[in-house]
Amino acid sequence: MTTADIQPILDGDIRTAARLMRDLDDRRPDAIAKLKALFPHTGKAYLVGITGNPGAGKSTVVDALIAHYRAAGERVGVVCVDPTSPFSGGAILGDRIRMQRHALDPGVFIRSLATRGHLGGLSRSTFDVAHVLDAMGYERVLIETVGVGQDEIDVMKAAHTTVVVTVPGLGDDIQAIKSGLLEVADVLVVNKADREGADRTERDLMHMLDLRATGERKEVEIVRTIATRGTAEGSGIGELGAAVERHRGRAWSGETAAGRANARATAHLGELVRALLADRASKAMAARGGLTEIAQEVVEHRTDPWTVAEQLVSSL
Amino acid sequence: MTTADIQPILDGDIRTAARLMRDLDDRRPDAIAKLKALFPHTGKAYLVGITGNPGAGKSTVVDALIAHYRAAGERVGVVCVDPTSPFSGGAILGDRIRMQRHALDPGVFIRSLATRGHLGGLSRSTFDVAHVLDAMGYERVLIETVGVGQDEIDVMKAAHTTVVVTVPGLGDDIQAIKSGLLEVADVLVVNKADREGADRTERDLMHMLDLRATGERKEVEIVRTIATRGTAEGSGIGELGAAVERHRGRAWSGETAAGRANARATAHLGELVRALLADRASKAMAARGGLTEIAQEVVEHRTDPWTVAEQLVSSL
Repeated sequence: MTTADIQPILDGDIRTAARLMRDLDDRRPDAIAKLKALFPHTGKAYLVGITGNPGAGKSTVVDALIAHYRAAGERVGVVCVDPTSPFSGGAILGDRIRMQRHALDPGVFIRSLATRGHLGGLSRSTFDVAHVLDAMGYERVLIETVGVGQDEIDVMKAAHTTVVVTVPGLGDDIQAIKSGLLEVADVLVVNKADREGADRTERDLMHMLDLRATGERKEVEIVRTIATRGTAEGSGIGELGAAVERHRGRAWSGETAAGRANARATAHLGELVRALLADRASKAMAARGGLTEIAQEVVEHRTDPWTVAEQLVSSL
Repeated sequence: MTTADIQPILDGDIRTAARLMRDLDDRRPDAIAKLKALFPHTGKAYLVGITGNPGAGKSTVVDALIAHYRAAGERVGVVCVDPTSPFSGGAILGDRIRMQRHALDPGVFIRSLATRGHLGGLSRSTFDVAHVLDAMGYERVLIETVGVGQDEIDVMKAAHTTVVVTVPGLGDDIQAIKSGLLEVADVLVVNKADREGADRTERDLMHMLDLRATGERKEVEIVRTIATRGTAEGSGIGELGAAVERHRGRAWSGETAAGRANARATAHLGELVRALLADRASKAMAARGGLTEIAQEVVEHRTDPWTVAEQLVSSL
């Protein structure tokens, strides 16, 4: 791998980058070699994760944030992660619609991930794509995930600041922002804040933050927004951007920064190790003609699944 | 392992079973040995998975189904999976509330799983607990998951029939029942069907089912319910039970049954292999004093994460 091989990426060439991302999806060795070569050129982007309840208007908030950062002169890369939409190509469709809106703006690059079936795959791919965007020179990388689940929480390990979006009117389902999600939140957003119940939602969130605060009370700002698609002028978006910068100042400077950086690298390594092991397991199982034949022995109770699994793993 | 060791489980002893489930959580070798010994006594339970949008009233539907199956004289085991609630003990609390309601009914056993951090852990644990409940003689095992994500979809691999619950009034967020979830649905429920918009929700679901139907159109019934906590008398619950039995008849008899049984055993083996590999990776990393030191080299750009991860995996 020579500098010439990665120069187009460093120059921000979109076609080369898109091809590299596709090759990374396929785990092509030459693509991973390029990623390694790009690594020394990364570390400049600031990654903001956006997650929250389905229906909270996350993608509208992301669109408004893109406009916000563009207005500030930053180049913006976006990774959209949609683990629940693997069959429909739904993420791809959303991708295209957004791409159209920003098609004439070379300062915005959007990449959707709807991969499934690879264990730890979404989180690994998010780190991969974020590194490529970073090397391409995007100062701001937004990571958006839909849904609520372990995937989302894993993916957020790649972010420097995590924004969790909710809305009024979910009633008892404020619990749908479960503590797992609340635990990773650095900034909380009450979107659609012109809806009835915004006060109550904010109170509930503050209450949950207090309940959570065992030991050191993590400082989490709550911001109200009324995001409007494609413009930074939606109410509260400037304030959200400012809250993210305040978190950045608190978390990523001074004494805490080193620990945070280490935790983030540790999370990435953990994901990579697990993903590599999963790759290895898939290959080993494929080499044995898949699991179908062995599974049949289990179906017929000729053996039990735990013994078979142990044997398979021992044979790797 | 002798028959005497597992006899209390086969006799349905709840304290012994609860202890075994705890020991399985800790991956104690003696517990896994018991699971293997129980395996020949399993295969009689019918597993019904219930998942869907947060706020759709899944747990109310589950409660009503418990009452429905109890009224039919079946013993009912329940596995509640709540991957988003690991810190609060939320699942445990809900567990207790439910347990109280059914405390006097020895025909109902409820077990909550709120484990996190174990890769593939939730799905593995669901299969484990379902096997124990099956060996204990529960004819009906309900598997409830909250949230929407890959976890839910993985967990549903353990079920014979998967019920996906939604409600009117999510507006555009019918898309929150993403195709991933729709893909695993055998029966669709429109709960809170007395709400405005139930007709539209049902039409939207039918439309999505049609869109999905590339090749063979999977037969998925849509049932409207107005579930009432703790009673089978909620409108539509009997019909839901009947729809599950109709799916059971279609899917688990005749020619398709063998393929389905094999797919289910294959999914279980896949989960077990992945989980065992993750265990191995965790141990290997712990033996090296965790990843912190290695991560520091990455933070300082002295090496890159992909090379380090490959080295770690090679050294296993």
